[in-house]
Amino acid sequence: MFKGLSAFPLTPLTEKGIDEKSFVRLIERLVSAGVDSIGALGSTGSYAYLKHSERDRVARLAVEHANGIPVMVSIGSVRTSDVLHLAEDAQRAGVSAVLLAPVSYQKLTSDEVFTLYDTVTRHLSVPLCVYDNPGTTHFDFTDELYGRIAQLPHVASIKIPGLSADPVATQKRLAEIRPLVPEHVTLGAAGDLAAATVLTQGGDVWYSVIAGLFPEIPLAITRAAQKGDTQTAQALSAQLEPLWELFRQHGSLRIIAGAAEILGLVSAPCLPLPLRSVAGDERQRLARVLEELGLRA
Amino acid sequence: MFKGLSAFPLTPLTEKGIDEKSFVRLIERLVSAGVDSIGALGSTGSYAYLKHSERDRVARLAVEHANGIPVMVSIGSVRTSDVLHLAEDAQRAGVSAVLLAPVSYQKLTSDEVFTLYDTVTRHLSVPLCVYDNPGTTHFDFTDELYGRIAQLPHVASIKIPGLSADPVATQKRLAEIRPLVPEHVTLGAAGDLAAATVLTQGGDVWYSVIAGLFPEIPLAITRAAQKGDTQTAQALSAQLEPLWELFRQHGSLRIIAGAAEILGLVSAPCLPLPLRSVAGDERQRLARVLEELGLRA
Repeated sequence: MFKGLSAFPLTPLTEKGIDEKSFVRLIERLVSAGVDSIGALGSTGSYAYLKHSERDRVARLAVEHANGIPVMVSIGSVRTSDVLHLAEDAQRAGVSAVLLAPVSYQKLTSDEVFTLYDTVTRHLSVPLCVYDNPGTTHFDFTDELYGRIAQLPHVASIKIPGLSADPVATQKRLAEIRPLVPEHVTLGAAGDLAAATVLTQGGDVWYSVIAGLFPEIPLAITRAAQKGDTQTAQALSAQLEPLWELFRQHGSLRIIAGAAEILGLVSAPCLPLPLRSVAGDERQRLARVLEELGLRA
Repeated sequence: MFKGLSAFPLTPLTEKGIDEKSFVRLIERLVSAGVDSIGALGSTGSYAYLKHSERDRVARLAVEHANGIPVMVSIGSVRTSDVLHLAEDAQRAGVSAVLLAPVSYQKLTSDEVFTLYDTVTRHLSVPLCVYDNPGTTHFDFTDELYGRIAQLPHVASIKIPGLSADPVATQKRLAEIRPLVPEHVTLGAAGDLAAATVLTQGGDVWYSVIAGLFPEIPLAITRAAQKGDTQTAQALSAQLEPLWELFRQHGSLRIIAGAAEILGLVSAPCLPLPLRSVAGDERQRLARVLEELGLRA
């Protein structure tokens, strides 16, 4: 399941809690499109803001409505004991894999992060994807640590940030990491903007924010890349440049949440406060971009 | 209560949860020493790692054993609704003030942070201290935002990071902030290493990690500074340089937790995993420093 396109949906909220109906509708869009896997409760799915009971409910809804498409959920939390509980809950909910970032309050050391993965993988029976997301965890993995963690049982993939849209740079970077990890561990793009490059330069999987709401174009990019059709993959990604520009300026979450609100796929506001989707002039700009890209449907 | 020395104790844990007996013993040390206030459940008190029920219990224990010394607790959480619940719990537990950092997973905007403080202060009946801690929140307050938030009702103090041990630099920095905030809002040092300088250059309060475990020398520094005896305050702080050096290298939490473990005041390990107190050679170095500074008692 750690190949191709993994779509990360929002977890829409209302004042009362999880907006279950809207969440299921988002999952059904992904099923209709035929994505390769679903990354529920990723950063885009606001896992870090939800209670354990809310995370359990969302995991169960995702599995129930995924129509057999493998579901991965994040089990990240600042405390190891909570991560272990979340891993148990997720496995009982029937997920096919878990995603784990070294979420922190106090900055973590490399030894602490290794021990976290070591402890958690001893308690797992499903595969684990290492979630390297320095923008939220403020932890910087070294390549050496990738290598150590990738040897642990159940580790199946690494979600790698900061890969470049420049093919030469990305090819070089993937070639640095490959020899450090076992052959069965796949390497994935964490950023949508460079994903076409990553998939056409030997990356295995795209962990995608945009595909969580708009799966069609990302799927076309992924399938083109998988066929070796670099030109089509890059051309499709370039079409989305107005959206990438908004991602760069506001972060992908506030834009995707704004898009879902504009389209009426979720009620507004759908993010957990204090987070807010893009507002004002920038929201109008987003609405125009969606219109121009034919993403209003 | 936002003047003088505010001591931030550890919240010692065991495998089973809060080590209540040891926590109460730490509070009693602060009461015996006569600190000006107690900052339970600060970053040193691992608030970000605890369940609401655990935070409630620790707040109640602190108030119960503080013998009338004002207790402040942190109500920080990534989600506004949780902050509001924690504020209610804290007030019901009888705290004299709350401390609020803009804890984040997704990086916050200035507007989001302002709205968080605006919302929370509307629901408070006790004073609030603004906790600016970019090392854990990854949010950088601007001086303009300090000013806007300081105008909100109940805001009584700001815990300011990054103040310098250089008197000229600190005097200048405090002089920049003073005109932006109402007169009743006090300015405090968030870092132990510069606190003697801050208190002797016009700062009002020292929010102190070391005083949570070893209150005597920080109290002597504070009282000297309050009398205008800069030389004594600085000389006492300089004595602690071997400890400050360990703080710089490992962070104050891992050192103070290690010190509490070495002294047998808490059981080891006392931090929530994945965090670990200082180990190996550096732990031995810490033990020697405590011995040399006469802090083994």
